Order: sequence, then structure tokens, then C-alpha cells
Amino acid sequence: MQMVVVAPQALATAGIAGSTGYAGRELQRLLAAHPRLRGTACTADTRALAQCDLAFLALPHGASSELGRELAGARVPVVDLSADMRVEWTYGLPELHRDAIAGSAAVANPGCYATAAILALAPLVSEGVIHPHVVVDGKSGVSGAGKRPTESNSFCQAAEGIAPYATVGHHHQAEIESELTGLRGSPVTVTFTPHLAPFNRGLLVTAYGRLARAFDQQAATALYADHYADEPFVQQVEMPRTHTARGGNGCQLAVWVDEPRQTVIAAAAIDNLVKGAAGQAVQNANLMLGFDETAGLTAEGLWL
Amino acid sequence: MQMVVVAPQALATAGIAGSTGYAGRELQRLLAAHPRLRGTACTADTRALAQCDLAFLALPHGASSELGRELAGARVPVVDLSADMRVEWTYGLPELHRDAIAGSAAVANPGCYATAAILALAPLVSEGVIHPHVVVDGKSGVSGAGKRPTESNSFCQAAEGIAPYATVGHHHQAEIESELTGLRGSPVTVTFTPHLAPFNRGLLVTAYGRLARAFDQQAATALYADHYADEPFVQQVEMPRTHTARGGNGCQLAVWVDEPRQTVIAAAAIDNLVKGAAGQAVQNANLMLGFDETAGLTAEGLWL
Amino acid sequence: MQMVVVAPQALATAGIAGSTGYAGRELQRLLAAHPRLRGTACTADTRALAQCDLAFLALPHGASSELGRELAGARVPVVDLSADMRVEWTYGLPELHRDAIAGSAAVANPGCYATAAILALAPLVSEGVIHPHVVVDGKSGVSGAGKRPTESNSFCQAAEGIAPYATVGHHHQAEIESELTGLRGSPVTVTFTPHLAPFNRGLLVTAYGRLARAFDQQAATALYADHYADEPFVQQVEMPRTHTARGGNGCQLAVWVDEPRQTVIAAAAIDNLVKGAAGQAVQNANLMLGFDETAGLTAEGLWL
Amino acid sequence: MQMVVVAPQALATAGIAGSTGYAGRELQRLLAAHPRLRGTACTADTRALAQCDLAFLALPHGASSELGRELAGARVPVVDLSADMRVEWTYGLPELHRDAIAGSAAVANPGCYATAAILALAPLVSEGVIHPHVVVDGKSGVSGAGKRPTESNSFCQAAEGIAPYATVGHHHQAEIESELTGLRGSPVTVTFTPHLAPFNRGLLVTAYGRLARAFDQQAATALYADHYADEPFVQQVEMPRTHTARGGNGCQLAVWVDEPRQTVIAAAAIDNLVKGAAGQAVQNANLMLGFDETAGLTAEGLWL
Repeated sequence: MQMVVVAPQALATAGIAGSTGYAGRELQRLLAAHPRLRGTACTADTRALAQCDLAFLALPHGASSELGRELAGARVPVVDLSADMRVEWTYGLPELHRDAIAGSAAVANPGCYATAAILALAPLVSEGVIHPHVVVDGKSGVSGAGKRPTESNSFCQAAEGIAPYATVGHHHQAEIESELTGLRGSPVTVTFTPHLAPFNRGLLVTAYGRLARAFDQQAATALYADHYADEPFVQQVEMPRTHTARGGNGCQLAVWVDEPRQTVIAAAAIDNLVKGAAGQAVQNANLMLGFDETAGLTAEGLWL
Repeated sequence: MQMVVVAPQALATAGIAGSTGYAGRELQRLLAAHPRLRGTACTADTRALAQCDLAFLALPHGASSELGRELAGARVPVVDLSADMRVEWTYGLPELHRDAIAGSAAVANPGCYATAAILALAPLVSEGVIHPHVVVDGKSGVSGAGKRPTESNSFCQAAEGIAPYATVGHHHQAEIESELTGLRGSPVTVTFTPHLAPFNRGLLVTAYGRLARAFDQQAATALYADHYADEPFVQQVEMPRTHTARGGNGCQLAVWVDEPRQTVIAAAAIDNLVKGAAGQAVQNANLMLGFDETAGLTAEGLWL
Repeated sequence: MQMVVVAPQALATAGIAGSTGYAGRELQRLLAAHPRLRGTACTADTRALAQCDLAFLALPHGASSELGRELAGARVPVVDLSADMRVEWTYGLPELHRDAIAGSAAVANPGCYATAAILALAPLVSEGVIHPHVVVDGKSGVSGAGKRPTESNSFCQAAEGIAPYATVGHHHQAEIESELTGLRGSPVTVTFTPHLAPFNRGLLVTAYGRLARAFDQQAATALYADHYADEPFVQQVEMPRTHTARGGNGCQLAVWVDEPRQTVIAAAAIDNLVKGAAGQAVQNANLMLGFDETAGLTAEGLWL
Repeated sequence: MQMVVVAPQALATAGIAGSTGYAGRELQRLLAAHPRLRGTACTADTRALAQCDLAFLALPHGASSELGRELAGARVPVVDLSADMRVEWTYGLPELHRDAIAGSAAVANPGCYATAAILALAPLVSEGVIHPHVVVDGKSGVSGAGKRPTESNSFCQAAEGIAPYATVGHHHQAEIESELTGLRGSPVTVTFTPHLAPFNRGLLVTAYGRLARAFDQQAATALYADHYADEPFVQQVEMPRTHTARGGNGCQLAVWVDEPRQTVIAAAAIDNLVKGAAGQAVQNANLMLGFDETAGLTAEGLWL
């Protein structure tokens, strides 16, 4: 069911709160090429945003819950890009919740790590191929740390090396566990370590599971091909590389089975600012407004 | 027992076969500051190398086995930096095999990933803290791919992103399994994925195990402190960063326990050209020649 | 005069010889979003290319002159991206030769450094503001060195530092001199030093001239604004940055006058693969085929 | 004349004010390997520093003039690494002012751009080879912008591109002019543009002059070889590369003559934190204390 209806071919307007941050800036880049949705920078103010057909909240974590609730109360369709509403609102991962998103007026955009990890593991978890504990090793470019200058995202700290951060208890861990648990129908736990790597855009997740039943490479390749056959933004590739994901909304996936060791490895590469943030928000907005889900998102990423 | 004896304070000579490759070049840098060992570039020729007190073989994989055997036959102490002799010769990881190395005239230097992974996991495996299957997620700078220009180590392919490579069956996998199996006294299997990250020097390993018995953060920190208390090149740190390992022979280690999920994470950062290759080779040579193990290796890495 | 006519709204076809090189690959990316021109990879063969409405030659330097002459003889409109035909054919810098390009069937795309340097200096030279000798200091990302793996474009050689190359007599030097001499109507000489900088895409030129008459910052800013007032791809900015030029066809320009030292500095930033190669080739093709000059080229560059 | 005398073989102590900044941190790295000088972090306090045999002031620009004057008044030998005292105190470029430095107790360390630019141009200017106006195009790694996190030194702003900054009137401009004027004996003016390039350590200067008399490549190479024949830290190389200057105190120089255009190009590469800051400060301290000028500075830079 489509809750929000925009007349065919009409242009809709989207208000962007937090337009100067990285996600907000990327929303503006994407909407500049959108055939049906015009983006406007707005102050983080209910009245300003209520003039629009849809509101994107691209505010710092912690800053959007009150505004989000007011907009929802005012029946303004809203996509929140922060972590604040991910438990309460519709979880905006279209590959898992397409119908619910299309029928919702309040959608919480997933975290960037969660997007990649869930897409990498969903076929294995939903089919019961692996044990209910998985390891997720994440590597993010520095734009994932946000725009505000800090010691850790300064050039000289981040360049020319790699390091883990936030080793136990990163907030994306619970988000991944919650979705995978939903897919499996029983508890799944995730050990997750994020790493900061020296490039601007891009996020790679390498996920590891133990086989719970007989499974081989051929079955794995077929499972992923089948599971994502109709997904416009998921591509099974030989080797996921964040390099070629930049600027586009695609998620590159690969799966490898190590039968002698009874393990399976799944890797996913996305642009953390696009499929990991602004692009997925537009994909959600497209569903909420009844547009073609790929509208404004068809540009391929840079190949270099 | 010390098999090779150099008179106190005398200078010894080291021949380097393969001096133009990355490991050979780094050997020369380190030996230039060594108080007792002078390095000389040699052709990969038994007679040339037999003139020296010790030979370093820094040749491409596959090229040193015949030469190595001839030198061993001629009783020339030799450290081979390739993968060729790691099964047959003394495995040159001083933190595990110090006495054997000191008493050996034919030492095989470990692989860079293996060095970091084994040092990260040894305390856990030798104490039986974890189940005998571990996940090792490795990230290497591009110098690990060697000097010969290829498409994958060209700047535009490697820069501005991250990707896995050689996903199942990398030759370091068996090397790690063999050493960990030796430590445990029963089979340990390793799922290993190496990644290529955009910087010159540095290698990070993030290793994941499942707890086999009650264990917490305090016990883990104490275990590592105790296990490596007398090791000159192993430092327990809050967060391993390859950035600060550059140029030095240190291995930065950290361990984190996620009790709710019954997992333990261990991370190790080294300079792949130093502790992962040339520095460790010098450390081995120091042991073989009866020198102070740290001779020529005391310079701290660059902090930036 | 328009020599080639394509019926309004009809789709034209473009053959690309050299589609696997960097410029050829970028042509395909741009043409995938072009409203009127479809790109097809072709072998470097006159018959294959003669089937198309226009041919792009993106072959290595030295490989396109014979093929180019055959195509021109067969009256196939052709844009050559190599250095081979820049003296003989129409010089494809639309900001200087728009009408000639629109009336030509054989256009030589300028070099990347030449594009930036000429756009930076044209207002000053054509107005006689500066002495007829200029200094051009160029900085290019590594994609400018082409796709073939060599020692100099390997990651470890190019990363984490900067260096000049080809210090006297780079072939772009003569190309810049020729165009500036044309603008001035009397000889202009250029001292040019290219540098290789550690990023994929982007080229910056910093050009220095000595004032030949009274001139100040206000006059300079006004001169550039006026000179480029109608140019769709030239933007006067506060500070040119290659970072924000990536992926787009824009040329960012700035000019500063140092009156006490009687010098003027002009800087230009482009994406070397777009305005410096494939994008400018499409811009030329648009003019040759009577399309809107900006067709397929309106996407803004990545801001990050 | 040596003003400060330390007994032969005795260890001297150096106090470092500002030890947590980049230059102060690098001073500590260098002094850790110094045979005669022990570094100690001190508060920026006259009494603390007056206990030492020499004081290094590595404070932010503007913060050291008062402290510097007090220490000089207290007859504590002092090397100031800021820009504050460069007009009043002995200018600490040993290649130009060795004797004055050795006889001084108050030395101002040159700026990093100034060091490279003056060493690149000194032979040409002092011999009257070029016209008294030169162009200096500088490229610095991001550590040159200091440690404090700002928008411009954040990773995402600085990575993956290059840009000029501070285009007219950078404070190093006057510093370079002053020294070159001194060398020539009549006014020299400098047009200087600094650029921020995406790497941690390293600074390259490309300088351009117009020939004032007959001069060719052979004469230029000989002039530089002769001028710097006895300099321990200046090397004439085929192509200066900041990559291989990292960590060492060397200055790589090259000079090229473009006779047809009557111009000469000189390029210099240094590590901005070593020869451009802390290393040169140690070199000055060595002279002031009567030590071997190269003490603690003989380690070669990283070759990778």
C-alpha cells in the first residue's frame, strides 16, 4: 500500500535538514539529477520541513528524534538518516523491507556498516546455512567519521595506515543482530570490528560464518544469484572493490565457501555516502512517494 | 646452543641475494645502521654468498630452494625470506622458536601475515582459551605485493579504496595453521582473507576466536602482558595502528573480549617490510650469530 | 557552419577505438548518460568505425595518425584524443575554437595540461597583460600516466610523495606555446614542469606571468569574469581544487595579482580524464554533430 | 667562535617546549638516537628550560617571542622553531650561516618552504646567473599544516587532490626574499604559491628563474656540485622526490637549464618535519654546542 501519493509526472519537493553535513551534501548531489524530486536545504524546523512533500533528516546522531516525531505527527513523510529512530520506525533497507517502506511515512535509514553486513549475510542467514554467530570485519573510508574536524579524522592521523576503532559494542552491532535475528527467526549474534582506512568514500564488509549444513561454492553462488535476482542495486561480482562503487548506489557482493574448514565468507562493497546513506535515503523516498525505485540513482559509480 | 660464533666486537659480513627487491632493499637500510653486521649485495650465486658470515636470500618465491640447499650444504648460515623453505627449515619466528633459531644454520623467515597472525593468537591458542577454529582478517599495504609492476599494484587500481584478494587458500593460511597447531598440540584451522589497502608499508591482522572457557577482559590483558613480558619487539597497546609501526621492528598487539558474545578479538600491527620481512630476518641473524637480538633494530618507527 | 547533420532528436552512434584504456573507458561512462549519442567499443579498424556517425580515437600516442587520416578520407567525423594530429587538425579546445570545431570533421583533442594551462592564461595573453614568457607548473594525478603498469605509476613509487618528471621539453610545452602565440599574435614561450601527485583523477596548473602594464586584482577578476561569461564549463572560483572537479567536465579558475612584485598567478583545476580527455572529446563531438554543447556533460563532479 | 662549550664526550641536555606538536614530537624522535644530546619535554617556562644546556622552542607561531627573549637574557642557548624571531636572531640555515650559528646563542630555525627554496636557488642567485625575480612553486604534505584539527587538514578535504592556498603574501615569501637579497647583495623578489598535497611528510619546491647571462646545463650541474661539495645534507640528484626524503635530514636538489627559453629550473625535496623543522634544529644545536654537525642525523630517510 502506498500511503503518500504524488500525481504522475508531477515534481515533488524534499526538504533536507542538515544539508551542510556529508550525508546532506550528498543528498543534494543526488537530487540535482533526480527526475521527480527537488531537494531544498531547510533549517531543522518542523514548520519549514512541513511545507515539503517529504523530509530528509540528515542531522547528527541524537538531534533528530524530537523533530522526527513532530513531523510524523504532522503527517509529513520523513526519512531519518541518523541512528535515532532505527528501533521505532520502519527500517529502511528496501531489499528486506520494500513493502513496509512503501507503506510507511516514517522510515529510519540503516547505518552504513549495517547495510553492507546485512546484504552480505541475508541469504545465508535466511536459509539457515550458517551457525547463528557471525564475524563482521568492517573497513570504512574517512567520510564515515563525519565532517566535524577531530584528531582521528585529521589527514595525518588517518592517512598511510589502517587501524581498528570502537572494538566492542559499536552501535551498528546491535542493528545488524536485530535484522539478522528477524531473518532467521531466532537469535543471531555478531562480533563486529570497524576499521578506518585511508580513502574518502567506500565501505567494505568481510563477514565470516560457520557452515551449519552441507554447502559448496556452486550452491553459494546460486543462492546469491537467486536471492538478489530482482534487486536493481545488488550485483554479484568476482571481487567487491570499494574503488568502483564510488558515487553509485550499488552494492557489490561476493561469497566464497571454504569447505575444508566448513566456513563461508561473504564480502560487500558500497559507497558509504550513497548506498550507505544518501542514496539509500533517496531509494526509500522513491518507494514512499510511489516513484520508480531507481529514479535519480541510475548513474554508475566512478570506475576510477 | 650457538652454532655460529663471531668473536666479540668483530664485524660480521652478510651477503644479500635479491638486493633490488623490496625486502632486499630494506635489509640494506637496516644493516646500514647495524653495529656488528655489514650487508653486501651479492648475485644469487653460492660462491659469492659463501664468502660471507651469513647469507640473506631475498629472492622471489620459488627461486631460493636450490641455492638455499647448496649454502646449507656448504655450512653457510642462511636466512631465507621466501616461502620456499618454511616447512623444511627452522621457522624463524623468534618469539616462538628463539632457541631453535639460535642453534640453527638454516632459518626460514615467516610470511608477513603469518607473523602478525601468530603473534596475535599465540597466547590464546597456547592457553586453550579459544576453540580451534579462528578467523583471520588481514589488511596489507601495497609493498606486500612486491616491486614488479602489475595491474593490481598500479597506483590507480590500488589507491582510494580497499578490496579482498586471494580469498580462499592463500599460502599464509597453511603456515598460520601449522604454527598454531604446534602451539595447541592438536589441529587448529584458520579462515583467512587478505585485503589490499592503500598505503605503502604496514600490515594489520584482526583475528577472531570463540571462547572455549570462562575468560574476561582483565584476564586477556594479563595473559598478553605475561606472555610477552620479555619480548623486546612486542608491545601491548590500546589500539594497534600500522601508521606508527612504519620503519620499526615492533609488533603492536591488543586483545578485546566480548563476553556477551563469547568471543575474543586480537589485533596486531607491524611494518610488513620490517617485522614482516627484513627486520625479522635481521633479528634471526642476530640470534644465529650470537649478537644482541635487538642489534640494528632499536630505531623506533615513524610516528607520522 | 555545421558539417555533420543529425536529424533533431535522433540518436547518433559513436565508435570508440581504444575503449579499454583510461580515456576510452571514461568515454563509455560519459556516453552511458548522453541523451543523443550512443558509444560502442570498436576495433581500431577503419571499416568498423566507418559504420558510426562519429569516431573517437582513444589510442596510445603514435597509433592513430594512419587510422585518423583514413577516417577523414572516408568522411567519418573523428575526434582524436592522442597527441598525433594536434598540429594538422582543428585544435579541439571549444573555448578558443568553437566555430572551427563545429565546422570540422577532424578534431584533435588537446592534452590535459594544455587544456588547463591555456584556459588559465588565455585572458591574460589575449589582452596583452603579461610579458610573452610564462611559467607553468603542472600537477597531475596518476591516471594521467595511462593504464599500462610501469615502475613510475606503481602504487609504492607514486604514493605518499610528489616529484617532477620530464623537466624540459614535455610535448605539452610546444602545444601550449602554439596556442598562446596564436592568441597573442606574436611568440609566447612557456617554461613548463609537470609533477606526479598521489591521487587518481585531477590536474592542477599554476601559471605565473610578469605584468606588462598596470593591472590589479579587481581588473583581473573582472577580466576573467568577462572572458568566460558565456562558457558553460569554466567557473571562476575562490580557490581551484582538483578534489571537487572529479567526474565533471568543469574547469575551475582563479587569478591573483601580486602588484608589489608585478606578477600575476592563474590557477586551473580539471579532471584530467574528463575536461582533460573524454569529456572534452564529447564536448567537441556535440559541437560537430550539432547537439547542445553540454549534452551528456551536465553532471557535477564529486564534491568529495 | 664557539660560544657554548660542552666537555668532550659529555652528554648535554635539551629542553623541548611544545613537545606535543608535530615539530616537538619529531625532535624527540631524533634526539632518541642522538649520541650526545638528551631531549626532555618541558613546559613553556623559562625556569624549566634554564636547567638545560640548550632549549628548543617548538611552540605555535606567536607564542615564543617572550620566552625566547627571557632565555636569551638568561644566557640559555636557544633554537626557536617558530617564525617569531627570524628577523631578529641568527637565521639558522647552516648551509648559508654556519659560522654565525656556531657563534650564536639564539638561533631562529627557518621555515620549511624557505629552507627548500633558498637551498634550491642559492647557487644561481649568489653567482648572479638569474634575474632578480624568481617564481617559487611549493608543494607540502599535510603535516606542514600542524597538528590542530581544522577543516583544511581534515582527511576528506586534503585527500585525493591538490590545491593552492595562501596565494599572495605567505610569510615565507618575505623570508625567502630576505635571504636571497642577502646572497645577491641587491633586492631579489619572489612570487610564491604554496600547495597542499595529499601525503603526511614531504615538501617540494620548484623554482624558476630567467637567465641573466650565458649558462647551460653543464655549467649548472657543475655550479651546484661545487657550491654544495662539502655539505653533508645536500645531495644533487637526477630527480628530487619527497618519497625518499622521509625521516632523513637530507635535501635533494636538481637543476635544469632550458636554454632556448633562457630559463633555469631548480627543484628541492625535503622532509618538512626534519630538514624543514626538527632535523635542522638539531643541526643548529650541534653547531651551537660544538658537536659534529651530523650527530644524530645520519639515518637515511625511508626509501619507501
